Amino acid sequence: MKLNEYLNEYKAKINDAIKSIYDRKLKNINNTFLRDYYSELKDYFLAGGKKIRPLLCIGTYNAFNEKKDERIVFPSVGTEFLHNASLIHDDIIDKDNFRRGKPAFHFRFRNYHEKYNLKKMIATDFGNSIGIIGGDSAFFLGLEAYFHNDFNRELNLNAIKYYEEAFIEIANGVLIETDMVNQTNLALSDYIEMVSLKTGALIEKSILIGANYARATEDCINDLSIYGINLGIVFQIIDDILGTFGDETVTGKPTDGDIRENKLTALKLTALDNLDNSNKIRLTELLENPNMTKNDVQEVKDLFSKADAVDSCKKLADKYYQKAKSSLDNLRPSITKSEAEFFESLLNFVVERKF
Amino acid sequence: MKLNEYLNEYKAKINDAIKSIYDRKLKNINNTFLRDYYSELKDYFLAGGKKIRPLLCIGTYNAFNEKKDERIVFPSVGTEFLHNASLIHDDIIDKDNFRRGKPAFHFRFRNYHEKYNLKKMIATDFGNSIGIIGGDSAFFLGLEAYFHNDFNRELNLNAIKYYEEAFIEIANGVLIETDMVNQTNLALSDYIEMVSLKTGALIEKSILIGANYARATEDCINDLSIYGINLGIVFQIIDDILGTFGDETVTGKPTDGDIRENKLTALKLTALDNLDNSNKIRLTELLENPNMTKNDVQEVKDLFSKADAVDSCKKLADKYYQKAKSSLDNLRPSITKSEAEFFESLLNFVVERKF
Repeated sequence: MKLNEYLNEYKAKINDAIKSIYDRKLKNINNTFLRDYYSELKDYFLAGGKKIRPLLCIGTYNAFNEKKDERIVFPSVGTEFLHNASLIHDDIIDKDNFRRGKPAFHFRFRNYHEKYNLKKMIATDFGNSIGIIGGDSAFFLGLEAYFHNDFNRELNLNAIKYYEEAFIEIANGVLIETDMVNQTNLALSDYIEMVSLKTGALIEKSILIGANYARATEDCINDLSIYGINLGIVFQIIDDILGTFGDETVTGKPTDGDIRENKLTALKLTALDNLDNSNKIRLTELLENPNMTKNDVQEVKDLFSKADAVDSCKKLADKYYQKAKSSLDNLRPSITKSEAEFFESLLNFVVERKF
Repeated sequence: MKLNEYLNEYKAKINDAIKSIYDRKLKNINNTFLRDYYSELKDYFLAGGKKIRPLLCIGTYNAFNEKKDERIVFPSVGTEFLHNASLIHDDIIDKDNFRRGKPAFHFRFRNYHEKYNLKKMIATDFGNSIGIIGGDSAFFLGLEAYFHNDFNRELNLNAIKYYEEAFIEIANGVLIETDMVNQTNLALSDYIEMVSLKTGALIEKSILIGANYARATEDCINDLSIYGINLGIVFQIIDDILGTFGDETVTGKPTDGDIRENKLTALKLTALDNLDNSNKIRLTELLENPNMTKNDVQEVKDLFSKADAVDSCKKLADKYYQKAKSSLDNLRPSITKSEAEFFESLLNFVVERKF
């Protein structure tokens, strides 16, 4: 089954599981503001996103079961909560008011403040406050995916351990990335370590949670882990390209963010590698300026183009694509054909995607 | 054993358990910034706080075991992580730069930014960003208290459920409190519901986690729950008094915060109840002003005094003190003498405390 077929098969079920976690909360709440808060969170979760993490969990579970069973859908949504919680906090940190073409979670409550003309606190602070608590709630509600399901307690406790590890690794990745703005002479290995944590960890853990419930062997878990981390690395390299050279109307994100923040992207890294010394110095100088003009941003993009950075990044992505593919090939004898096809089509989607 | 003796017996052990959770993380980290991050979190946890939540968990466990065993110390620190994580986020939300007379967690990283003269992001944003992630990390690290201990998986999964419930209830309490600023005609029952969640829930859950590991009976759990929530209510009422009429040099907190934020405190509630109509209107008018002067704050305090609000609050606290005490009396036949003394002395401490 290809990714699209998988999505068609499971998207509504995944959304139902997410809904049921929120409805369980809403059922017992009378306070109007609390109702609005959980309804807004629920809507944020259901409004968008490709649900790749739950799909990976479900796909992995199915890969070890000739007969599909629906029990895996409920716990599969845990990492979607973790993912959305991180996005909610990231958008506050990065001051991004939109996500997936819709208002970011904190921005919804900034608007709420204005709509109801609330007292005391100003609207921006109100939005950020409810946003901080909103992310926290989502982190905790994700745990409920492992409480209310039909698997035994041992498997659920294992899943919670993966859930916790995933967050710790994401946080480490984000912190290393934040610090990288202040570091020079960073190597490819630093970048790969950072994105393995920031992006790879949650993809890997979504897979391993599926493997846990399927009681996969140690050998399989090892290959699944390599597949997942490398899928994450490929995802991030392509994300870096799209973040600067993507079509804003398709990605829904402005193409100057990474440059203005001087993020260590694959583009920056390969450009610094490919450019001669004087262009390298110029690029660094431009990126370190805290008040970049539009022209500065364009000059950075031009330097990226001069360095053939997009092509170099695609080659880099291919290196990690091959690693993921080779792990997948190791797995083939142990997993179902239909799910091997799913894993392969997902890998191809991640390389070819335009959004 | 009285509270003080309990604290003497366990404080170092509790701190060791907290340390070991951080040291487990630090052991595998080479990145300088990450090391600084976890070291700062560890220091924040060890720098202060009365460790009442771990003590309650330990005390409850011991109450059902004639022979003390040290296994309970490690899982007892989970709710201390939850408590500190909430404080880290609260201080960002309330823009409080100090906590327990020391820099708040986000403020430490604002200073860190200035010390190392970091690039791009401004110091305030850097501090808030690391603070948001810091609170998140602490929420997750608390789960490790339930992974690495000598109890079985079933008991640990139960503890994690209490951990999650505690957060959801705290968040609901904080959200209801935030919304109350915009509500009128609030009754005592609204206040009690809010503080039961905001303050009572984590105290109650710390106790129930201890009871879970001790496999206490349903009847005992019921009485422990009532004791815990009412202890929390008493704690909050006294906190409200100290927040406005306490000695700043002892509490470490300015005495105008609650008034300026127009929080629904026990003082505000009882004052509105006791004052005549014209004074009531004046009090509301003063509290709703978003730009209060020092004189306005003083006038509010004078109206509180005129209404005998402190005395009324103490009477109110006594009502919930009696409820906690009566649950404790129900428990006496089932629990050890030494721990009954601990529960009683803690209840007395909470009423009599000046900080």
